[in-house]
Parts: sequence; structure tokens; C-alpha cells
Amino acid sequence: MFEPEQCVILLDGAMGTELQSMGLMTERIPEGVNRTNPEAVIDIHRRYIQSGAEIIYTNTLGVNRYKLDGSGYLVKDLIQAAVQNAKTAVALEKESSDNENHSVRIALDCGPIGTMLKPNGDLSFTEAYEIFREIVVYGKEAGADLVVFETFTDLLEIKAAILAAKENSDLPIFASMSFEENGRTFSGVSIPSAAITLTALGVDALGINCSLGPDQIFPLAEEMTEWTNLPILVKPNAGMPNLTTGKYDISPDEFAESMSRFPAIGIHLIGGCCGTTPEFIQKTKERIQSCHFGKTLNQERTVLCSSVKAVVVDRVRVIGERINPTGKKRFKAAITNHDIAYILNQAIEQTTAGAEILDVNVGMPGIDEPTFMAEVVEAIQSICDAPLQIDSSDPKAIEAALRIYNGKPLVNSVNGEDKILHTILPLVKKYGAAVIGLTLDENGIPQTAEDRIRIAEKIIKTAASYGIPKQDVIIDCLTLTVSAQQSQALETLQAVRLVKERLGVKTILGVSNVSFGLPEREIINTTFLTMALTNGLDLPIMNPNNELMVNAVEAFNVLSNMDVHAEKY
Amino acid sequence: MFEPEQCVILLDGAMGTELQSMGLMTERIPEGVNRTNPEAVIDIHRRYIQSGAEIIYTNTLGVNRYKLDGSGYLVKDLIQAAVQNAKTAVALEKESSDNENHSVRIALDCGPIGTMLKPNGDLSFTEAYEIFREIVVYGKEAGADLVVFETFTDLLEIKAAILAAKENSDLPIFASMSFEENGRTFSGVSIPSAAITLTALGVDALGINCSLGPDQIFPLAEEMTEWTNLPILVKPNAGMPNLTTGKYDISPDEFAESMSRFPAIGIHLIGGCCGTTPEFIQKTKERIQSCHFGKTLNQERTVLCSSVKAVVVDRVRVIGERINPTGKKRFKAAITNHDIAYILNQAIEQTTAGAEILDVNVGMPGIDEPTFMAEVVEAIQSICDAPLQIDSSDPKAIEAALRIYNGKPLVNSVNGEDKILHTILPLVKKYGAAVIGLTLDENGIPQTAEDRIRIAEKIIKTAASYGIPKQDVIIDCLTLTVSAQQSQALETLQAVRLVKERLGVKTILGVSNVSFGLPEREIINTTFLTMALTNGLDLPIMNPNNELMVNAVEAFNVLSNMDVHAEKY
Ligand SMILES: [Zn+2]
Ligand SMILES: [Zn+2]
Ligand SMILES: [Zn+2]
Repeated sequence: MFEPEQCVILLDGAMGTELQSMGLMTERIPEGVNRTNPEAVIDIHRRYIQSGAEIIYTNTLGVNRYKLDGSGYLVKDLIQAAVQNAKTAVALEKESSDNENHSVRIALDCGPIGTMLKPNGDLSFTEAYEIFREIVVYGKEAGADLVVFETFTDLLEIKAAILAAKENSDLPIFASMSFEENGRTFSGVSIPSAAITLTALGVDALGINCSLGPDQIFPLAEEMTEWTNLPILVKPNAGMPNLTTGKYDISPDEFAESMSRFPAIGIHLIGGCCGTTPEFIQKTKERIQSCHFGKTLNQERTVLCSSVKAVVVDRVRVIGERINPTGKKRFKAAITNHDIAYILNQAIEQTTAGAEILDVNVGMPGIDEPTFMAEVVEAIQSICDAPLQIDSSDPKAIEAALRIYNGKPLVNSVNGEDKILHTILPLVKKYGAAVIGLTLDENGIPQTAEDRIRIAEKIIKTAASYGIPKQDVIIDCLTLTVSAQQSQALETLQAVRLVKERLGVKTILGVSNVSFGLPEREIINTTFLTMALTNGLDLPIMNPNNELMVNAVEAFNVLSNMDVHAEKY
Repeated sequence: MFEPEQCVILLDGAMGTELQSMGLMTERIPEGVNRTNPEAVIDIHRRYIQSGAEIIYTNTLGVNRYKLDGSGYLVKDLIQAAVQNAKTAVALEKESSDNENHSVRIALDCGPIGTMLKPNGDLSFTEAYEIFREIVVYGKEAGADLVVFETFTDLLEIKAAILAAKENSDLPIFASMSFEENGRTFSGVSIPSAAITLTALGVDALGINCSLGPDQIFPLAEEMTEWTNLPILVKPNAGMPNLTTGKYDISPDEFAESMSRFPAIGIHLIGGCCGTTPEFIQKTKERIQSCHFGKTLNQERTVLCSSVKAVVVDRVRVIGERINPTGKKRFKAAITNHDIAYILNQAIEQTTAGAEILDVNVGMPGIDEPTFMAEVVEAIQSICDAPLQIDSSDPKAIEAALRIYNGKPLVNSVNGEDKILHTILPLVKKYGAAVIGLTLDENGIPQTAEDRIRIAEKIIKTAASYGIPKQDVIIDCLTLTVSAQQSQALETLQAVRLVKERLGVKTILGVSNVSFGLPEREIINTTFLTMALTNGLDLPIMNPNNELMVNAVEAFNVLSNMDVHAEKY
């Protein structure tokens, strides 16, 4: 639909503040004007089209079941009216225009619900999803060309909206959040986390709107370009509100001047938010006529995130292994007794000790793993910044966790078996995760490095066929027990090296298994860990409370020049 | 002179026991018979030649200044007479023989002095050298074709003899020692240590004679083939002496039967010692007519030794760094006060902690380093089995130590500077050592791995031009301080890998320097050590009393399948 590499696409400016200046914002539900005074809405749309806007947003920002409750308005009615008004404006402009190429598309505009999701508020993820589903369905029925979710501050809420749109329409999706000058949304979402998560969720464009003027948004937009390859949209306000007059503080010329800087940093979609008028868009169009992109976006890093913290795999990152009941009586009891506090304590202890990612496994016979997994993931995310690794052999448990995960997680795991690949990879793609590929298949763990690499290749290729880029596939060459199969330690290490060299993907490895059955396991584990790191291991899964091992990782990061000036060490 | 690959060369049998059976061994100096009854000696030589001996030994085993003292005989006279007797025998046989191709060579036979060298006895290395020098000079003047040192049990004594022969003649040298059934000489020299050291000293053949019969020597000779590529000689007795009769217990046919097994294990030179007669040699000749070599000797391992212990660099071996005054007040005081006991204690502490090789550096301004170095090496060797690494920047100190070193040591070091290469490498070759090549030259330490490898290539090539095989050149890629030059740790590690891969030589590295200026140096050192081992480091020079580092080495040997079944770990 869009070919944003080629040119800047102009969006429209504010609807609300325009209506306000026309004295039409007196109702509790401002979008009621779609029905009470459609001509005013159509007029504003037409003036934006005349100013050069190629995409116009329907007047539906606050239209949702929660906000309309008790107002007498229905979501369906207002959305139908709003889309119709936009269509009317487009049709009228088409008739009166000489320019046949001037095709204008209609974006169904959708803002946040207006109440917080759990655990901060009362709304469940599923309830939020339902609210958005309804909006998308009506918008699609009414004939919108795309959906734009904007002004969001909660990453999980916009994820619910995006899933609702993906699962109930084929409309392109724009996703835009509002940031404060510190680069965080009201709820703490960072620019990287927003960009990584929205990109992984497969939207068509993502961006920043409202809250700030163009000059304040500029550095945030620039940061955003570091974290996505997708088209970025920017819709700033007309400056900051003047504290005495309450009016926005910059002129159309000043706005256009500021906006003309955006294409050079790679911003593709440009418009205005609160306080902007057709004149702002007109002036902006004039200024950006001849500008061109100064930057090609090319983000191929492996990165995971929570809503507030991104972890780039550009140096060794420790994955904490302790949230796992296998072989742990106390942990099993915690699951049986629904003792979430115990599990949260494991999370805190591990991140305090230096784990940057946490594996979460709650698999145990006799529990409802999907429900419990989702609950634990939600609980950990409410108290812990670290991105999570969702570890289960039950696809339902993986999906339950993926659905409510706030950010971009890592799925543990797929392997070379077709059945598993074709069950799990679609989930990984849909929910915007990265995935671990174990180098084993129907025939077990191959004895040789070469055979493990063949399986890794198959996993990477199959992932690509689902649209999962190779930086989101992390290969586990599998650690065997050296006391049982002594030559296998070298085979694993060799596989790690070859996977890095030949396939160019990141590697992950559980370390502790190597020393099973030997005395002083910690020494064997630490040495094997360092050997694996030397051969290119990126993500050791280990007990971060083992000081020897954590020391080895930190020293490795210094010696391999990844912890520059030994700042972390 | 010899082309032993092509066929077995037959040596003669006993002289002493033949004379005895003729009733001619009544003098205190049995070799007096060379003058008192030359016809008898000539007759025995002739009968050996008739039996097929291609090399006959002069009747001079006990002829030396120490043994002749007070006897009225002179070394010069007896050697001249003995060589003349052998020459006469050869000439007479040549006249009477039809076989024109039957050329017989005369070996100047020389046994141990008959009194022990320091520190076990009173004789100094230099005194021993002088005794042998005299013998070699007279033997050469008299016209011997080669020198054979046989029946030795002290490796240092035979080294003195070999150096006397090399420095005072161009005669080929055979070196043969006498072992007991446990594979050790009377003074404890092992088969590997004897073979390694004699091979490194550049003799023309080495072997085993006397003390045991052919069946007892067979496994020892077989072991010897594992440790040298040189021709091996075997001269067993005619079995073991019968305890009641005092006579040797096997017949010529039995002897020949046993001797016929030797060519198949790669033994080139075959004869008899005590109790053997011309008939033994005749029967042996008949039995080995059609035999051929079953084994090609191809010993290319890197190996160092003391007289009692060989260390093969087939897995990681720790080199103790502590015998070195640099930066150590207490050690400097020990040198100043000639406190050898302190230094010996450093040696014992390190080997107890797991060091398998010890670096010895006593360089300090104001001392006579050559004398002190030799004294310290001698003292350490008297109490400690570990091979030593002779570490000095003074070529005179290196030579002083090399000369009296008992076994095959490692010289620390040469580098890419021509002046140093052409000063030190001739010493390394002459005294049969291995050598460390530092990858630096006149221009300092190169910043890149590639440039260090170029220097390594030059060192290996120059060593080869002196006849030092590449397994005896061990490359040090040089550890820099990571706090000063952070990227250099990776450069060193890369160099280690490339030196192994491209040049196929062993590597050595001082480890501790990497962490200078950082906190918790031990962690950085241990991690760097493991990284270096993973990249192919064979010989870490380190403090073996650091438990973390020793643990890492032991764990590495398990994980890399070098310590099979974790027996050492
Ligand atoms: Zn706004
Ligand atoms: Zn003998
Ligand atoms: Zn043959």
C-alpha cells in the first residue's frame, strides 16, 4: 500500500482543536459532532485535503465503548458517521480537484480507552482487546482504508489494539505513542521498547504524536530510527501550550520550518496534532517538497525488551535460569501453593545479581500451565524490568504468555521437528517475539557439530518463511554432560563457533549441565562458560547468583572489548 | 655416513667376556691387553668381522684418566694401541675377504668415568668433560671412524661426553645407556628422558646396551622408538647371568631368535654386549637377513624433560612463573644473600601446586648471572623433577645453564631481532633445547595479530635454518595490559589462534600482565587464561599457587578431552 522509501507522505493536522476554535467542542463526547454537525467535520477534512494531506484521520479518537457508556451515543453509529464524513470530504475534493493523482486515504483514528489496564487499573487485557475489536470491526465495515492507534502511553494497551486489528481485519495499522521530553511515555515506556515491540508486532508504520512540539519530538524521532526499519510517523503539536493563554506557541511557518528537518533523519509520515491547522499542513507541504531522506534505516540487531527496558545482544547478556521447577522441591511447592511471591523473589534475586533476561518456566504436571504462565509473566513484569524468556513445551502456555507479554520476549523454544516449527513459529511471528532454536530434531541430538548446524540452518530457513528475520532466531547448540560424553563439550563449542561464523546468528547455551556428575561443578561450569563465550556464545543461561560465573562474564566483556573501559566491571 | 633406513647394521659382540674366556682378564686395567697381547684382541675383532659385524668397537671401554690413574698405563697409549688393533683386524680381513663391499668401521668405545658427577659425587661437569675430551682427541688422532659412548647411567655424564666429542671432533657419535628392567638407569634416567635428550643433543644414533638380555631390552627399545626419529642401537647381554654359575643364560641361537624381533619395531643397529661371542653375531646375522622394518619413526611432538621426567605438550601444561626476582624484594634479597634454599622452596611450592615446568630467571644487576644461573639450575634439578625454562636476557647465562642442564630444557627466549636469533639459536641447537619465540622485533610489539604472525614465521624459519624443528619452537604472542590497550586482548587471542592454525606450532603466554591496573585481577587473569586456552594456548606461564587459575586449566583439560575421564581433575 505504501512505498515510503520514495517520498514523504503528508498526514493531516488536528481535528479537536479545530472544532474547538469553531466553538463545537462543548459536548461531553466531542465526537458527537460527527452526527450533530457533520458539515463542520467534512469542512475540516476538506481543508486538510486542500492543504496536501494524503491521509486523513476520522474524528473518532475517543470513540470507544468505555467512554461512550451512558452518553447515549453508540460506537457503531459514531464510527459510521465519522468514516462517512471523511469519505464525503474525499469525494467532494475529488470532484473539485484537477489533480487526478491526488488520492486520499482514510485512517480510522483510535486513541486509548481512557482507563488503565491491570495490574495498574481494573481493565483486563481481554476486555481491552474486545473494546478495540469492536472499533476495528465497525471501522472496517464503514470503509476505512487503515487503522491508526495514536496517543497511547501504555504499550500493553496498544498491543491489545494491534492484536484486535490484526485478528479482525486486513487493514494496515499505524501505531503511535505519546512521549514526554524525557523520552518516556506517561507509564514509562521507552522509545526503544515502543519501537522494538511495535515493529515486532508487525504494524505498517509506527511513530510519535501529540504531547510535544516538533523540536521536542525531533530527538525522540531520531532515537526511534535506531530501533526499527519500518516507516515512522510524526505528528507533533503546534509547540507547547502557553501556560497563561493555554494556546500552542508556534506559528505555521515555525512548525513547517521544524518539520522540514524530519525527512533527513528518515521520517516518512508527517502531520500535526493538537493546535495544528490546515495552514500548518500547507506550510509544511511547501517546505518538504524538495527534501529527501538522509538516512536508510537498517536495524538488524538482536534485541529483546520489556516496556521500559531494551536489551541488545551486542555483548554477553546473562539469562537467569532459576525460575524453573525442574528438580526443585521448593519451587514446585510454590507453584502448587500459588505462591507468586516466591517466584517474584527469584526474579529479583537474579536481576540484582546481574541477570539481564529471565527465563520463566512453570511447567509441572497437574497445573493449568497456560493460565498460570500468563499470570506469572504478568506478575514478574509488574515488578521487574528485565525482558523475559517464555519457556514451555506447551504451545498453549507459550501463546498465553506471548499474548499478554508487555514488550518483545524470547520464546524457549523450537527445534528441528517440523511439527514444532509449524506450531510455534506462527505464534512467534504474530506476537512479535524472538525464538530459540535447539539443534535437535526427531532423531535426537546429533553427535557432530556439522549435523547440529544443518538443523540450525533448517530452523533459520523455516523462520524466514514465516517472516521472522534471522536476528530473531537464536541458536542453542546444546550442552551435554562431559562426564558421560567427554568429547561432546568440544563438539558443542565447535558448533557454537560454526553457527556464528557460517550462519551469522546469535547463540544461546545452558551451561550448568556440562558438569553433571563431576566434583566442584562450579569450576567446570565457569571454565566451560568462558570457553563458550570465547567461541562466540552470546546468551548464557545460568544461575546468576553463582559469583564465579558472573565474574567470568564480566571479565569476558572487558577482555573482548565489549565493556569499554571496564565501566561495568 | 649411515643410511639406516635401508637395512640393519650389524655391530660386534663382547670383547671383555671373550678375553675373560681366553684367560686374559687378569689385570687391574683389562684394556692393558691391547699392549700386552694385541694378537688376542686382533683375533677377537677378526672373528666378529667374519661373523658379519660392520662396526667393531675398540677395546677401550674403561680407558680414561680417572681409571688409569696410578696404573702405569696412559690413556693416549692404550687408545692408540686399541684403535691400531682394530685397524689391523680390518686390514687383515679385507685382504682375506672376497667381498669387496664388506667395509667395516671402527668405533672408539668409551664408557662412564667410574665415579659420580656432582652433586651426587665429587667430579665437576667440566672435569668430566675434560676426561672425555682427551679420549675423543686421542681416538680421532688414532683414526677411529666414530665414537660410541655406552653403558652410561648418568644422563649428565653422557651429555658431557657428547659435548666433548662435538666440540673436539667431527666424528659421528653413538650414545647408549644401560637400563634396568623397570626402564630406569641406575641413577633413575627414564627411557623418554634419555631418548629426548640424546636426540636433542644431535647424536647420530642412540640406544640401549648391557645389563639385560634381548627379551628384557625389547620393551624398552620399543618405548625408545616412541621418543626419537634417530637410528636406535641395541646391544643386549647374552641373557641374564645365572646366579650359581655366573654365566650368561642364553645360547647363540636363542639370542639370534630374540634379536630377530628388533628390526620389526624399527631398531637399526644390532649387536651384543656381555657374554656374546662371534657365534652370537653370526647366528643373529643369519636370522635378520630377510627382515625389514615394521615401523617408521616419526616423532614430532613438542617435549621437554629432566633426566627423570618428560613433559609432552599434548595437553595444557602450567609453567610456574615465580622463580623470578622482577618486582620481588624478598627474591632479590635471596639472590644477594646467595639463599639457594629460598629459591628451591619456590620450586617445590610451584610443583606441589601443579606446575609441570618451571621458569628460572635470576637476572639482577650486580650479580655474575652465568655462574649463578648454572648453580641455581643445578640445585633445582637436584631436588625437582620438572623440566626447566631457562629465562635470561644474557646469552652467557643461557649458555652456562644449557651446558649443565640435565635433560632437554626450554630457552626463554628469542624474538624477531636478527642479532638475538643468530646469537641464541646456535646455542639452542647445540645444547639440544626447545626455544620460545616472542612476537616482537626491533620495532617493538606489533599492534596487529597479522604482524605478530609474520614475526613468528621469521623465527620458525630462522630456527629451521639452524636445524631446529618447528616442534621445538614455541611462540609467545605477548599479553598486553587491557586497562591500557583494551582491544589488545582480542588481538593477542587472535594471534594465538592464527599461530596454531597457520603455523602449526605450540604457543606459550604469560597471563598475569593482562589485568594490570584493574581490580580483582585474579578474575580477569582466569578468564583471559581460559579464553587463551580456548584459542589454542598450550603453555600458560602463571602463578600455579593461584587456585582459580589452576582450576581453570584442569577444567579445560577435562572439557577439551585432554584429561581423559577427568583422571587428573
Ligand atoms: Zn494531540
Ligand atoms: Zn655389557
Ligand atoms: Zn632389512
